[in-house]
Amino acid sequence: MLSLIGLALLGTDAMAAENTAFEPIIIAEQGSFAVGGTVLQQGEASLHGDHLYAFYQKPVDARKYPLVFWHGADQTAKTWETTPDGREGFQTLFLRWGYSVYLLDQPRRGRAGRSTVEMKIEPYLNDAMWFDIFRVGTWPNYFDGVQFSKDPAVLDQYLRSISPNTGPFDRDVAVAGVSALLDKIGPSILVTHSQSGGLGWMEALKNSNVRAIVSYEPGEGYIFPEGEAPEPMPASDGMLFPKTTAMEEFLKFTTIPIVMYYGDNIPSQPLSNPGHDTWRVRFEMAKIWANTVNKHGGDAIVVHLPDLGIRGNTHFPFSDLNNLKIADLMKQFLTEKSLD
Amino acid sequence: MLSLIGLALLGTDAMAAENTAFEPIIIAEQGSFAVGGTVLQQGEASLHGDHLYAFYQKPVDARKYPLVFWHGADQTAKTWETTPDGREGFQTLFLRWGYSVYLLDQPRRGRAGRSTVEMKIEPYLNDAMWFDIFRVGTWPNYFDGVQFSKDPAVLDQYLRSISPNTGPFDRDVAVAGVSALLDKIGPSILVTHSQSGGLGWMEALKNSNVRAIVSYEPGEGYIFPEGEAPEPMPASDGMLFPKTTAMEEFLKFTTIPIVMYYGDNIPSQPLSNPGHDTWRVRFEMAKIWANTVNKHGGDAIVVHLPDLGIRGNTHFPFSDLNNLKIADLMKQFLTEKSLD
Repeated sequence: MLSLIGLALLGTDAMAAENTAFEPIIIAEQGSFAVGGTVLQQGEASLHGDHLYAFYQKPVDARKYPLVFWHGADQTAKTWETTPDGREGFQTLFLRWGYSVYLLDQPRRGRAGRSTVEMKIEPYLNDAMWFDIFRVGTWPNYFDGVQFSKDPAVLDQYLRSISPNTGPFDRDVAVAGVSALLDKIGPSILVTHSQSGGLGWMEALKNSNVRAIVSYEPGEGYIFPEGEAPEPMPASDGMLFPKTTAMEEFLKFTTIPIVMYYGDNIPSQPLSNPGHDTWRVRFEMAKIWANTVNKHGGDAIVVHLPDLGIRGNTHFPFSDLNNLKIADLMKQFLTEKSLD
Repeated sequence: MLSLIGLALLGTDAMAAENTAFEPIIIAEQGSFAVGGTVLQQGEASLHGDHLYAFYQKPVDARKYPLVFWHGADQTAKTWETTPDGREGFQTLFLRWGYSVYLLDQPRRGRAGRSTVEMKIEPYLNDAMWFDIFRVGTWPNYFDGVQFSKDPAVLDQYLRSISPNTGPFDRDVAVAGVSALLDKIGPSILVTHSQSGGLGWMEALKNSNVRAIVSYEPGEGYIFPEGEAPEPMPASDGMLFPKTTAMEEFLKFTTIPIVMYYGDNIPSQPLSNPGHDTWRVRFEMAKIWANTVNKHGGDAIVVHLPDLGIRGNTHFPFSDLNNLKIADLMKQFLTEKSLD
């Protein structure tokens, strides 16, 4: 948890960061590559697919660990770039603060579009569904005090950051892609969001180059030791199931610092709106999971932003109107855990 | 055409560029956005799709016109980033040289994946087809002297830059997306490749913010004045058809400088290999088209790289082993046309 001194400094840090937004960015190196994936082979014929795509930027004198930014469901690396209202996202903010940044499109998404398995993409008219799940409000109405501009052009940008799977969503394929990335770049800090929250837990068990996880509103996929999982949790969009693994595997979670951030407008009692109610149980299970990790000697924190007096955040705190404050929290976490 | 003095300077320029590759890159601003597209509406339900995605970087004291880099078929903005063998691509080279760069994923591709029309993506085992069409060689053999590393890891990167359409390929949708981008950013220089060559000609007729076109191996889609089109040209992959438009429209091509570059290993006589033979007629029609543009007062050049003694280039000259030399040619063109 943040100290009172940390909280008092927030305002100043955020202003300092804001002032740097017009300073030039100095980059030692930038580029992109594919990594991981498979080759589908039939006789002489072949197809390369299921790889991950990453774009990276390294500042001069980069800090120890790079940040690996992993988008959520139906999103791409765009998640971490410019905010829907046109301000700098975490890519550029953390680059300015001396971190190497890797932004990935997971296998079968965005620029990593080539899949080894066929897929039919249908144009679902689901703007309203995403608006609710992303907790901007209850379509078409915004939450009071939401950290999201009510300019229609901003919502237009937001809805156009959605991008479909180009092959069936497969957790193992996604996790294998990120594992190949970590094998290539070495020890890193994973920054996950929503669906990639659960994938990040799988990644921490698979690849020891995960040295910390910062997770924004992780969704399904909490992994408990066998015999210690809570009951499945019903919500109005369905049941949330915990996953389990052997204690030996689970204990890997206790070797790295983990922080999970949740925003505002998460119901504390069951609600009929499935997009909102889903976060009630996800947030609840996050807290149980963190307690389980800590009971076994780990260091997992759940930060409910409203508890710090930070109100109005959506499912995308890192691109909300107050994203400098949110970035400062993450920066302080990395400093406190000696990860910078 | 390049002057002899220009040619003599090439070596020096290329070396100078090579030396800058380890200097820091100084960026005044970078970010990404969606632009254009439509909204599919049925009653209360909606979907935002068919937009373009762009990532941009602006150097300090940018030159007059930004460069808008437009990928070809089954490619994304990756085309212009790091080369398959890990060197700087045109994105970073031209940024270093003071140009603002916009790299786009056209509508229904890459990070602009959301389409308003359904699409089934099938995993065709077509590595061999692309290897031949891209004129790296005749699968699995490389052309002698090809400007492409024979390290298998490089071919792996190259084949993984392929990314499918996420909705039906629609020229008008793609051109509308780029037109929306040009409306937003103003007068620009279009840099096209292969399939986007033909789309770029459409764009020049649609949007007067196209102030010049640099096209690498443009494919189908040459637009002639009515009554002046050549006969369709047969090749072993099918017939290449010219397009036509009213003279008034055509004359727009005469108001901007246009350069087209073609690489090596384009057959001069019909060949049974469809991937190679297709470029014979495309190159041939490019020359007829440039003559037609020039006959009406325009300034269109076709540069056959082997005529300058530059040998071994594939369908991707800008990412070939000699891409610094290729970049220098483009830089000189922009200087000669007072576009810098």
